[in-house]
Amino acid sequence: MRKINLLGATGSVGSQTLAIVREHPELFQVVALSFGRNMKLGMAIIHEFQPEIVSVEHRRDYEKLKLEFPGIKAYYGAMGLQEVATYSHGDILINAVMGSVGLQPTLDAIAAGKEIAIANKETLVTAGHLVMRAAKEKGVSLVPVDSEHSAIFQCLQGENPANIDKLIVTASGGSFRDKTRDQLKDVTVAQALAHPNWSMGNKITIDSATMFNKGLEVIEAHWLFDLDYDKIDVVIHRESIIHSMVAFKDGSHIAQLGLPDMRVPIQYALTHPERSSISFQKPFDITDFGALHFDKMDFHRFPALKLAYTAGKIGGTMPSVLNAANEIAVAGFLNGQVAFQDIEALVENAMNRHEAISNPDLEAIFQVDQETRAYVKTLL
Amino acid sequence: MRKINLLGATGSVGSQTLAIVREHPELFQVVALSFGRNMKLGMAIIHEFQPEIVSVEHRRDYEKLKLEFPGIKAYYGAMGLQEVATYSHGDILINAVMGSVGLQPTLDAIAAGKEIAIANKETLVTAGHLVMRAAKEKGVSLVPVDSEHSAIFQCLQGENPANIDKLIVTASGGSFRDKTRDQLKDVTVAQALAHPNWSMGNKITIDSATMFNKGLEVIEAHWLFDLDYDKIDVVIHRESIIHSMVAFKDGSHIAQLGLPDMRVPIQYALTHPERSSISFQKPFDITDFGALHFDKMDFHRFPALKLAYTAGKIGGTMPSVLNAANEIAVAGFLNGQVAFQDIEALVENAMNRHEAISNPDLEAIFQVDQETRAYVKTLL
Repeated sequence: MRKINLLGATGSVGSQTLAIVREHPELFQVVALSFGRNMKLGMAIIHEFQPEIVSVEHRRDYEKLKLEFPGIKAYYGAMGLQEVATYSHGDILINAVMGSVGLQPTLDAIAAGKEIAIANKETLVTAGHLVMRAAKEKGVSLVPVDSEHSAIFQCLQGENPANIDKLIVTASGGSFRDKTRDQLKDVTVAQALAHPNWSMGNKITIDSATMFNKGLEVIEAHWLFDLDYDKIDVVIHRESIIHSMVAFKDGSHIAQLGLPDMRVPIQYALTHPERSSISFQKPFDITDFGALHFDKMDFHRFPALKLAYTAGKIGGTMPSVLNAANEIAVAGFLNGQVAFQDIEALVENAMNRHEAISNPDLEAIFQVDQETRAYVKTLL
Repeated sequence: MRKINLLGATGSVGSQTLAIVREHPELFQVVALSFGRNMKLGMAIIHEFQPEIVSVEHRRDYEKLKLEFPGIKAYYGAMGLQEVATYSHGDILINAVMGSVGLQPTLDAIAAGKEIAIANKETLVTAGHLVMRAAKEKGVSLVPVDSEHSAIFQCLQGENPANIDKLIVTASGGSFRDKTRDQLKDVTVAQALAHPNWSMGNKITIDSATMFNKGLEVIEAHWLFDLDYDKIDVVIHRESIIHSMVAFKDGSHIAQLGLPDMRVPIQYALTHPERSSISFQKPFDITDFGALHFDKMDFHRFPALKLAYTAGKIGGTMPSVLNAANEIAVAGFLNGQVAFQDIEALVENAMNRHEAISNPDLEAIFQVDQETRAYVKTLL
C-alpha cells in the first residue's frame, strides 16, 4: 500500500490521481491532500477519500472544513501546504499544485525524506539546482508525472544513463501548429484553447500553442535526467502518441507510446518499476491511428522554444524570468489585454533586461519572480 | 573483451557481426568461426580476424585450409560445427548458420555453458521446447539477434515480464504488401526478391513477401519470451522503423526503433544491457521519415501467418512441418517450379496430412523434417 500526500487535489493531475486511487484502493491511499478554493469539489473528495489531514488556500474555507469534518485535521495557506507535503503517514508526495507556491513544499518533503512525484513545473524550472541537490543529499528520488518525462523515465528503465545519446521530446505543436507566424496575428483566445489532443487547463493549453510548455519541459528534462541542453531535442509529433523517446549511442531508440491519458504517467510514478492495470474505454491500438507524423522543430516558427533553451543554458535566475514573464503574459492574453504573439515578445523583453544571478537561493528566486511579474504587468 | 564463437561467418548476419568486431576490436574478438562453401570470402575473413579454430562444410575445403593456415585448427562438417559452437575460449555463441543444421550446435553450446545469441530460425521454431528447457537447466541465457526479437528484448529491460499485456511484432508486409491476393497470381521471382526495406538473403525475402517469416518470428517470440500465442500480435508497419514493441498492463507501450541495420541488434546481443557506439553514414532522425504507418494484420491476405499461428498453437512437430514445407516450397518458387501462392498451399497441404507428435526429441524432429521435405518435393 502506497500512502500518498497529494498537493492540488482538485486540479487536472489531482483528479486523475484520485481516479487511480479509486481504481486501485488495494494499492493506493491518499492520507493527506490540499486544494485551493474549489470547496464544492474539494469537500466531495474529502468525503470519498477520507484523508487524515487536509489543507486549503484560505482561512474561511479552513474554518468551514473544521466544522464539516471534525475528525480530519485541517490547515490553510503556506503552512498547510507544508503540513500536507511532509505528513508523516505519507510515503510519497504528488506535487500537482500550480505555480511557484509548489516550490517550498517540494523542498520540505525532500527534507522529510519523502519520494517526490513532480507535476509542478516551477519546482524544476526555477529551482532545479536546489531541488536536485537536496534530493541527492537526502537520497530521495524525484519521479516525473508529465507524460513526456514519464516516457523518458520509462524508456530509461534498465538502461545505463551513460549510454544516452540524446532525449527526443515530442510536441503536438498545439492548437496553431498549422498556422504560419503571419496567420498567428489575429488568433482568438477561444481558438488558442482548442488543443487537438490533450484536455488540460487554460494556461498549459496556451503554453502548448506558443511552445513555452515544451520549453519548460526541456528545462525540467535537463534537471531530471542530468543532461546538457544539446542532448535534448524537440520534434513535432501531431498525434501525441509517442510521448517521447531516448536515443542511445548504438543508434537504438526506445520510445514510450499510448493514448494521451495522464493516468498512465501518474500511476507509473506510484508503481515504478512495477506496473498495474488501468481500465480504458478502448485499449490503445496503434493501427487505429493509421499514420504517426514527425516534423523537425522550427525555432523561427516557435521562438518561445528558442527562448526557453536560451534561458536554460544561461541558467541561474533566467528560467524564473522566462516562467514568470510567460505566466503574466498568458494571463494578459486570456484577459484580452495582449495579442497571442505578444506573449513571446513580452517574455523576450523581460529576459533581455534581466542580469541572471547564478546559483540563486529560494529568496533570490522569489524576488526575481515577483520583480518580473510586476515588470511584465506594466507592459500589458 | 567478449570472445565469440561464430557459426555462419560468411552469411548476412555473420558479415555484420564481423563489421561490429572490426569497429570495436577493444570489445570483441572472434576466436572460432565456421562458414559453408564460400572459400574466397571465408579465407579473407580468416586472414583478417585470425580465429583460433575454423570449420567449413566440406572436407576438400578443410584440406585447403589446413595447408593455407597451418597455425589455425581446422574442422569440417557436423563435428566442425560442434567444435566451433563449444570452443572453450569463446564466451558466447552467435549462431547465424542457416537451416536445421543450426539446431544441434545450439544444444551443444548450451551444454558447454555458453551464452547463445540466436539468429538461426530453426533452433527455436522446431526445437524451442528442447532449447529453452536445456538453457533453463544450464542457467544459460538465450539472446535474440533478429531485429524484432531484439526490439522486444530491449523494451523489456528493467521490466517485470508479469506486467506484459502483449507483444506487438511489426511486419513490413514485404515486396507484395500493396497487392491483393488476386494480383499475386502471376508475380515473378524478381518482383518477390525486391524487398522494400531490408537487404537480406533470397529465402528470407520470399518469406517476408508470404509473411511466413513473420510467422516463424511469432513462434520464436513464443519461446524466447515464454508467452502464449494470444499475447503476440502482428501489425503491418511499412517503414520498418519501429522494430517491435511491448504493451504493458497499464496501457503503456514501449517500442524500439531506428534504422533497419542489423548491426544494432547483433551488437546489443553482445553488449546488453550495456550499449556501445556504432558508426552510421547518417544517424537516425525520425523526422526524415515524415510519417510512420500502421495497419491491421489481414489473415485472409496473409494466410501464411495464420498457418504459423496454427502450427505454433498445435506445437510439437507441427512447426517443423511448417518450416520444412516452406523451405522446399520457396526453393521450388525460386527455381520456377511453382507459383508464389503455391508456397502457402504446399505448406497447408503438408500440415493437413501431418499428425503432430508432442514434445518430440531431436531425432523425431529431424525425421519429420526429412519426411516433410521429401513429401513436398513430390508436389513440385
